[in-house]
Amino acid sequence: MQTQTPYRSRHQNMSAILARCGPVIHEPNDDLAPALPAVLSDAQRDAYRNNGFLLMPDLFDADEVAALYAEMQAMRESYAHQGRKEVISEPGSGDVRSVFDVHHLNPLFANLMRDPRVLDVARDVLGSEVYIHQSRINYKPGFTGKEFYWHSDFETWHIEDGMPAMRALSCSILLTDNTDENGPLMLIPGSHRHFISCMGETPEENYKKSLKIQECGVPDPLLLSYLADMGGITTAKGKAGSVVFFDCNTMHGSNSNITPYPRSNAFFVYNSVDNVLHAPRDGLIARPDHIAARNDVAALTPQALAL
Amino acid sequence: MQTQTPYRSRHQNMSAILARCGPVIHEPNDDLAPALPAVLSDAQRDAYRNNGFLLMPDLFDADEVAALYAEMQAMRESYAHQGRKEVISEPGSGDVRSVFDVHHLNPLFANLMRDPRVLDVARDVLGSEVYIHQSRINYKPGFTGKEFYWHSDFETWHIEDGMPAMRALSCSILLTDNTDENGPLMLIPGSHRHFISCMGETPEENYKKSLKIQECGVPDPLLLSYLADMGGITTAKGKAGSVVFFDCNTMHGSNSNITPYPRSNAFFVYNSVDNVLHAPRDGLIARPDHIAARNDVAALTPQALAL
Repeated sequence: MQTQTPYRSRHQNMSAILARCGPVIHEPNDDLAPALPAVLSDAQRDAYRNNGFLLMPDLFDADEVAALYAEMQAMRESYAHQGRKEVISEPGSGDVRSVFDVHHLNPLFANLMRDPRVLDVARDVLGSEVYIHQSRINYKPGFTGKEFYWHSDFETWHIEDGMPAMRALSCSILLTDNTDENGPLMLIPGSHRHFISCMGETPEENYKKSLKIQECGVPDPLLLSYLADMGGITTAKGKAGSVVFFDCNTMHGSNSNITPYPRSNAFFVYNSVDNVLHAPRDGLIARPDHIAARNDVAALTPQALAL
Repeated sequence: MQTQTPYRSRHQNMSAILARCGPVIHEPNDDLAPALPAVLSDAQRDAYRNNGFLLMPDLFDADEVAALYAEMQAMRESYAHQGRKEVISEPGSGDVRSVFDVHHLNPLFANLMRDPRVLDVARDVLGSEVYIHQSRINYKPGFTGKEFYWHSDFETWHIEDGMPAMRALSCSILLTDNTDENGPLMLIPGSHRHFISCMGETPEENYKKSLKIQECGVPDPLLLSYLADMGGITTAKGKAGSVVFFDCNTMHGSNSNITPYPRSNAFFVYNSVDNVLHAPRDGLIARPDHIAARNDVAALTPQALAL
């Protein structure tokens, strides 16, 4: 099903900056409201609404971080050089850069994404029941971790996956300390209020390359400068166990990591059950389910993390 | 003239960590002492001796920075795509990464390196008259600036240029604000007390590639971890006009820069006139004069920067 959209991108030989349609924090659906306790404070809601992100320090304790870290490393070792479709390697070194679909590959991470400390924030912000659109671990290894260039996730999800509206949220759970030095996530406050329409057509099976180095759906430098000059750049630093929640349309990226210290995060994208994927735009072929879920879209039920 | 050295590197299939020979701050030669006023305080000398670097904020004022910045940009524009030997481009984008030999190419930068605020620090630390071993501007452009991997300058200068002893100093004059976000210089305090002997043979004309991406003279990750675990990592952040002085053997590097804001520095390497270059080691062919000076090695006389 192809529908009209206010968010055209990758169409013509031009870039554009468009206003966002729809809210950042969504009014709760009738079916959700009685079930969900208030999770965010008013100040947290305001910060998320204004900035497009919220850093919550120390949501997970040291024991939980240690268990998740060990599990993440075990996955990395067992998946290296297996040629698995879920595993993306670093350009150059071949080190494991990301593992996708971790909520299907690993029971502990399947449990993690249902933990109320993260799941209920997603339900609160999106005002509905939610499911996982994409999950992954970003390892960003020491020494060889390369940058992630600026992007809005929604631009890709809208064009390549057919996600209809900006009613999704990314949740990055820090599994190592994220410092100024090891290539932490950078976000542009306020950028989520603008849709940056990007130049250039999407090549077939673009995702196989774009998950390593993005060359399409890349925002124009002038528009990035405009956003950064207006909003500044905030670095999401924090101890392992902290969590960054950010809107699907917040412009973000990160520099490389030459320090000896990996910057590893678990990454869950929660999408509203009222925002399931349509067909990709522009006649593109849908990306596979381990990158963009189309089958497993049932509402998640909370389940506290059990080690 | 090939001499004995305590610092072997790139010889065998092994890495090693060796103790530094000789001081960090050098006793003044007899011919220098009466001419040079005390430049560094005791606290600054101690910091430089212990850490291997010293950040001096705001050595140059806003007018000086503006003039130097404009000159630097003019050079960049006039030299782009000219195929000049002094110009190194970014891997990938082809943007200007560095311009070498700026003290010969440009009168303002020739003046800058004689300014007592930097020259006298070099004379003070090296305890002798000095000359420029290498000069350059590192542009690290916004959006596309790539990382400089960890290295000790002395390792390269000793092996590829035949610099005999650790009696040289790098001086990086910040021409834009260097922030946590735009790929600032990172240094490992205390690393200057160790010589990291690196694996791998040097290919011919290595410098043509190594100035973009270093693949030889690269320190072993285990030894880097050892140095960083011991000393930590310090980021040389500062406003434009600040200056970082660091020992020729201090391990340093920087991450990429995806922000819209360039991280540009002027870079002068002062070498003691008692430490002029010998033949390169291991039968290597000497690098050209714009990379490693062999001809213009007369002692520099101070001359205040005049706009």
